[in-house]
Amino acid sequence: MHAITIPQPGGPEALVWTDVPDPVPGEGEVLVEVAASAVNRADILQRQGSYSPPPGASPYPGLECSGRIAALGPGVSGWAVGDEVCALLSGGGYAEKVAVPAGQLLPVPEGLSLRQAAALPEVVCTVWSNVFMVAHLRPEETLLVHGGSSGIGTMAIQLAKALGARVAVTAGTQEKLERCAELGADVLINYREQDFVAEIKQATDGAGADVILDNMGAKYLDRNVQALAVNGRLAIIGMQGGVKGELNIGALLGKRGAISATSLRGRPLGEKAAIVAAVREHVWPLLAAGDVRPIVDRELPMSEAAEAHRLVEASGHIGKVLLVAP
Amino acid sequence: MHAITIPQPGGPEALVWTDVPDPVPGEGEVLVEVAASAVNRADILQRQGSYSPPPGASPYPGLECSGRIAALGPGVSGWAVGDEVCALLSGGGYAEKVAVPAGQLLPVPEGLSLRQAAALPEVVCTVWSNVFMVAHLRPEETLLVHGGSSGIGTMAIQLAKALGARVAVTAGTQEKLERCAELGADVLINYREQDFVAEIKQATDGAGADVILDNMGAKYLDRNVQALAVNGRLAIIGMQGGVKGELNIGALLGKRGAISATSLRGRPLGEKAAIVAAVREHVWPLLAAGDVRPIVDRELPMSEAAEAHRLVEASGHIGKVLLVAP
Repeated sequence: MHAITIPQPGGPEALVWTDVPDPVPGEGEVLVEVAASAVNRADILQRQGSYSPPPGASPYPGLECSGRIAALGPGVSGWAVGDEVCALLSGGGYAEKVAVPAGQLLPVPEGLSLRQAAALPEVVCTVWSNVFMVAHLRPEETLLVHGGSSGIGTMAIQLAKALGARVAVTAGTQEKLERCAELGADVLINYREQDFVAEIKQATDGAGADVILDNMGAKYLDRNVQALAVNGRLAIIGMQGGVKGELNIGALLGKRGAISATSLRGRPLGEKAAIVAAVREHVWPLLAAGDVRPIVDRELPMSEAAEAHRLVEASGHIGKVLLVAP
Repeated sequence: MHAITIPQPGGPEALVWTDVPDPVPGEGEVLVEVAASAVNRADILQRQGSYSPPPGASPYPGLECSGRIAALGPGVSGWAVGDEVCALLSGGGYAEKVAVPAGQLLPVPEGLSLRQAAALPEVVCTVWSNVFMVAHLRPEETLLVHGGSSGIGTMAIQLAKALGARVAVTAGTQEKLERCAELGADVLINYREQDFVAEIKQATDGAGADVILDNMGAKYLDRNVQALAVNGRLAIIGMQGGVKGELNIGALLGKRGAISATSLRGRPLGEKAAIVAAVREHVWPLLAAGDVRPIVDRELPMSEAAEAHRLVEASGHIGKVLLVAP
C-alpha cells in the first residue's frame, strides 16, 4: 500500500507518499481500507519531529480515518468485513490501510458520507471526553471555546448547544466568528481586537465561563483562570501558546476552580474504548438527527498531505481538512 | 456572651476575649451554646487581617465548634433544643454562642465526647470534599498528604486508609512521621531530608501519587505535578508556600492530570450542606465504628486563644488544638 511517511522531520515537504508494507491486524484489531483521513495539529508536531508516536503505534501520521473493514484480526466480534466505519487512531491514518483496535471503531453515522465521517473521531472524542466526561458541562452553563472555527471548535459549539449550554467563542477573523455564529455560538470574541476576559465577564453578568476548552496553554493560562466562573473548569487540550505558564493559585482557589490537561493519543486502549463507547451513546444520535454535523473545510488527495499541512498551519481553514485516499 | 474579637489585626496578642452581644439565629439557623472550638490556619490569616469573613458571617474567628443547641430559629426541623452537635461554621466559633445554618450541623458521633467533636467538622469536611468528592480517590490508589501530622493530615490518613487506599505523607520531624505511621500511613517522607518526588516514585514503582492533598500551593506546584501519576489529581487546599507558581502544562498534559483548588468557607450554604450531608453518610459511620478518630494535640481555655495560635504557628502540634469555652 501507499502511506505518507516522514523520512526526515521538517516542513510540509517532509511528508512523502511512499510504497510501504501493508499493516497486519493483531489480536482485537481490524484492518480498515481507508477512504479518508483528516489533519490534526498533532500531525504537524509529529512531522516536525516533536511528537513521537506512542510505543506500538503506526509510525505514519493520521489520528483518525473512515473506510471499509477489509479484514478482522483474531478475537474481534461485532464487526464484519465490508462494514463502513470511522475510527480513532494512534497513528497511521495517512495511508491506504490501517490496523485499528476494534474498541476505537464507530459506524458511519446515518445520513453522512463515508468521507465526511473521517472528520469526526478526533474532534468528537476530544470534545466529549474533555468538555463532558472531565469538565462535566451542564445545561444552562456557559462554555468558552478558544479557536471556535477549528475542527475541535466547530464540534464543541454544536455539541454544547445541542445539550443546552450557552457558548462563547474566540477566533481571529470576522469570517470565522460568523461561521461560529451559524453553528450556534452565542457570544463572539475577536481575540485580535478584544480582551476575552472582559468580554466573557460582560456576557455573563460578571460571572465568567463555567467551562473553558483551551488549545493555547501557557499564553492563556492566567487569563483563562481570570475568565473562569466560581466552580469553573479549565480543560487544556493544546499548548499552541507554550508549555510553562504562571498559575495564580489564589485566584483559582478563590473560585474553587479546576484545571485539567489531557490528550487522546497516549491513553491506554481501555480508556480510548470507553470514550468511543460514550461518544457512540451520546453523540451518534445527535449526528443521526442532524443536530450536529462534521464541518469540512476542504478535501485534498492524501498524496498532497504537504499542501494540507500548509493550509492548517496558515490557520485559514474552518473545520476540518480531509485527506482522501486514492 | 464572651467571644474572641480582633480589635486590630496583628500577632497572637490581637486576639481579645471580650463581652459582646449574643448572636440571634436567623431563618433556618440554630443557636449553639459552644463547648469547644478548634484552631485552623485560616484563623491565623484572619487574625493577621488577610482573610476577611465572607459577607454575612460572624466577625469573630472560629470555623468549627461543638456544643448544645440552645434555641431554634424559624423554619428549622430535625433538631431540638439540648441536642449535642458539632458544626461547620463561616466564623464565630471562638465564642460562648454561635448561630449556625442547620445544614451545617452534625450530631456528636457515638463514642466521642462533646469536646472531641469540635475537632471534626473542618478537617472531615475538607478531606471528604477534596479527596473524595473532587479528586475521587479510589481504593488501591495512592494518596500523598503534605503535612501529614496536621489536623487535616491526620484525618486524611485515617479516612483514606479506612476506604482502602495507600497513604504517603510528608512531615518535618521523625516524631510527626511516627504519629502518621501509627494512624496508618504506609510511606513516610521527611521533607527536610528527602525529596518527596523521588520518594513517592520509589514507593510506587515509578508511578507516582494518584491524588495529592496539598497545603503549600506555589512552593510545591511544580514538584507536585512531577509527583502525580498518570490520571493523577492534585487537590490544593492551602497556600502556605505562596500564591503564584509556574505550572508545567506539558507535564500535566502528559499525565492527563488535573489540579483543583478549593476552600470551604466561601462556599454557598447549599454546597456546605451537601458536603455535611455526604460526611454524615460516609464518615460518621467510620467514627462510630472507631475506624477513624479525631486527633487532639491539646485543649486550652478559649480565653487563651493567643497561646493556641502561637502553638499552631510554631507547628509543634500533632492534630488539632482545641479551645474550650468556659
